[in-house]
Amino acid sequence: MASADIGLVGLAVMGSNLALNIAEKGYTIAVHNRTAARIDDFVAEAKSQGLSERVVPEADLAAFVASVKRPRSIIIMVKAGAPVDAMIAQLLPHLEPGDAILECGNSLYADTDRRFAALEPKAIGYLGVGVSGGEEGARHGPAIMVGGSEEQWHNAQPILEAIAAKFKGEPCCAYLGRGGAGHFVKTIHNGIEYGDMQMIAEVYGVMRDGLGMSPAAASEVFRKWNEGPLNSYLIEITGHVLAAIDEETGTPLVDLILDKAGQKGTGVWSAIVAQQLGVPATAIEGAVAARSISSRKDERLAAEAVYGQRGGGSVSVSLETLEQALLAGKIVSYAQGFAVMAKASEDKGWNLPLATIARIWRAGCIIRSRFLDQMSAAYARGEATNLLMVPDFVSVMKASHPALREVVAAGARAELPLPCLSAALSYFDAYRQGRGTANLIQGQRDFFGAHGFEIPGRGTNLHGTWPSTLGK
Amino acid sequence: MASADIGLVGLAVMGSNLALNIAEKGYTIAVHNRTAARIDDFVAEAKSQGLSERVVPEADLAAFVASVKRPRSIIIMVKAGAPVDAMIAQLLPHLEPGDAILECGNSLYADTDRRFAALEPKAIGYLGVGVSGGEEGARHGPAIMVGGSEEQWHNAQPILEAIAAKFKGEPCCAYLGRGGAGHFVKTIHNGIEYGDMQMIAEVYGVMRDGLGMSPAAASEVFRKWNEGPLNSYLIEITGHVLAAIDEETGTPLVDLILDKAGQKGTGVWSAIVAQQLGVPATAIEGAVAARSISSRKDERLAAEAVYGQRGGGSVSVSLETLEQALLAGKIVSYAQGFAVMAKASEDKGWNLPLATIARIWRAGCIIRSRFLDQMSAAYARGEATNLLMVPDFVSVMKASHPALREVVAAGARAELPLPCLSAALSYFDAYRQGRGTANLIQGQRDFFGAHGFEIPGRGTNLHGTWPSTLGK
Repeated sequence: MASADIGLVGLAVMGSNLALNIAEKGYTIAVHNRTAARIDDFVAEAKSQGLSERVVPEADLAAFVASVKRPRSIIIMVKAGAPVDAMIAQLLPHLEPGDAILECGNSLYADTDRRFAALEPKAIGYLGVGVSGGEEGARHGPAIMVGGSEEQWHNAQPILEAIAAKFKGEPCCAYLGRGGAGHFVKTIHNGIEYGDMQMIAEVYGVMRDGLGMSPAAASEVFRKWNEGPLNSYLIEITGHVLAAIDEETGTPLVDLILDKAGQKGTGVWSAIVAQQLGVPATAIEGAVAARSISSRKDERLAAEAVYGQRGGGSVSVSLETLEQALLAGKIVSYAQGFAVMAKASEDKGWNLPLATIARIWRAGCIIRSRFLDQMSAAYARGEATNLLMVPDFVSVMKASHPALREVVAAGARAELPLPCLSAALSYFDAYRQGRGTANLIQGQRDFFGAHGFEIPGRGTNLHGTWPSTLGK
Repeated sequence: MASADIGLVGLAVMGSNLALNIAEKGYTIAVHNRTAARIDDFVAEAKSQGLSERVVPEADLAAFVASVKRPRSIIIMVKAGAPVDAMIAQLLPHLEPGDAILECGNSLYADTDRRFAALEPKAIGYLGVGVSGGEEGARHGPAIMVGGSEEQWHNAQPILEAIAAKFKGEPCCAYLGRGGAGHFVKTIHNGIEYGDMQMIAEVYGVMRDGLGMSPAAASEVFRKWNEGPLNSYLIEITGHVLAAIDEETGTPLVDLILDKAGQKGTGVWSAIVAQQLGVPATAIEGAVAARSISSRKDERLAAEAVYGQRGGGSVSVSLETLEQALLAGKIVSYAQGFAVMAKASEDKGWNLPLATIARIWRAGCIIRSRFLDQMSAAYARGEATNLLMVPDFVSVMKASHPALREVVAAGARAELPLPCLSAALSYFDAYRQGRGTANLIQGQRDFFGAHGFEIPGRGTNLHGTWPSTLGK
């Protein structure tokens, strides 16, 4: 007898937390896992949280599927890649037309596109769902980015909205487009997260190495910034991280942590996707590069031994200037990320709702911020796809770009690396430059490769008569 | 009766020029083309150049292959992608074990890897050959980067060395490794070319917009620079391009050319490959982004209307400082490109000879320069894979990085976009920083995702006890 509102396969920590979240919201959930012992563990955990009445455990896959009411929504939360394809293949014989698979892992959007296309002729819905917010988010309210079969989305919508994070009562969950749209948006979310974190780290570097501030003093600055326009989860936790004291030594924990950043690949994915779409995402690229260089600690120590420790002395920028610079850099980084999504939307025919994306990122996910609330409102009012052209942000950017250039200039002179902030500034300066310098590049390309150039009013694909020698 | 030393299929301009080059060097070449009329045109052209005696035209593919002496070397020069696969399929029935296909187009190295692997079990050699130098180079001496079947390389070696550009008598042609090694190196060559061109354009922008120099004055500067450490083909032709006068108006041609740069995709490929390998190539990425932004002329004009024309006024950097900055930026860009090749070599087991690569780029190709001669010598003497650690370049970099930071700082203040030069500076400053700021990023990642961090001497995958609130 089908009694469950939804099913879930894959009871590792993310899947378990999502299932508990669903049960807690009043829905009955059937659960299954390849290793049955994990199912028992989950039932015990659900019981300890008073939720076991709404859990239907099934060690047999066919019985699991049968226990879910039709049209079925089956969440799979397994490792990205081949395990997802294997799980789909196992589920398929048990599903009926109109049912749907909701794949909630960190999949490559191109894989999701492929799976969606393969299931569509079978009338089995496929939803690629980006879930952001980590383990805590999964349990208590993640941001949920849905792509794929629109019809089946409506079956699962009440449950997904119920478990999603809320921003002023609105669920941070939306259907964004067909195929891999949801996973695509999740990838760009992660790329933007890389940019945010790197720009914060650069500003922290200016405080530590340029202004000589202690972690405690820097923590206090981030605490204050969190009350202003930079208000966001990442600024808040930066204050917390900088305040942490190591119990063993009594010194600031951040000073003890090795400066080698890990990365799990979504930053690289978003950089590659942006390149494939032909949209500049230099802030994301700068952030990925910075993590990569950080991981080469031995090389850096060897280079420092050869070139000597940083010269350049202290810098003299105010904390207000740093705050404004970070804001300006962040606007550019989001402008790039949203431009990537706008282009993908066009190329893939997804019709991605940019205002909605900003809206569902306001809570639950790592990059949640006041900024995104303003962004959502601004995009909802206007037509611009590049954030730099959205009126509310034009005024913020006008006020803050002088600070960004002051900080970049100071960092350059003081030998402080600011890859992300300087990439943001260069993008802004190139983007707002009506007459650039690519005329020279076109001249060079015609000179050596006869690639042709355009002269407005005269024609395209013109060629120069280039002098072969230069007079003195 | 087999009479030809080598065969060539595909008589578009690159193929024709390569065939004429081969005939001119005294080798008999069989030629074939899908549309037979093109073969007649080619024969007429060969006749006009006095080379038709060493040309064996064959409109029938089987007869064409049969006319080449065994073991055969058959060059194919057709459009990259599916046409290459189609051509291979057509040739295969006519080839015998020991014969080889030399694919000389601009193929993705991964495609070359795949084709190499498919032909190896059939004992048909497959060589993926990067040919650089454009149409002129193909005719009179290109740089030739060979990858694939080493045994068959030796069959073709005398011919390829004969047609290659020479640097002080040495042919700019070498076997670099198995599979797609040759096409991979060609891709990175093109990425480096993007970086060189963009950095020159940035310096030109400083001259034009920051120093108020005319094209003629700028041309004269490049002419002088070409006599110093920047001596290179691209610096030379920049002088020529800036000197060209439009016949119709009598004004400098460069001022009339539309500032929208084209790109054919190899810059994007090299950026993607670098991301896939996890090696920072931010100078290439900056150059690709700059071309992309340049192509959005309408967006830029709209942004200029909103933000107002560039403020920031004139800059006060000397031409000597600009020259040194360009040199420093170029060193970093090459350091990144060679680091990408070093990593690919390791991952793919290619054992790429870095000194040899620098050596065969000294003539024939677009990025040929005095610099590459020094680089080749430096790599030949040392073991370092990152150019920033090669002794000869350490001293140049020590002398020139202060100029780079002066220019980047001036550009930031003067609102002049310097995406490539500032990316180079950020890379250098991050690379030489023994203690970076990724400790903060690791703290953040542990805070929100329990990703763990390392404390040297205490352990890896440690977790912090993070304060959940901050005292005032």
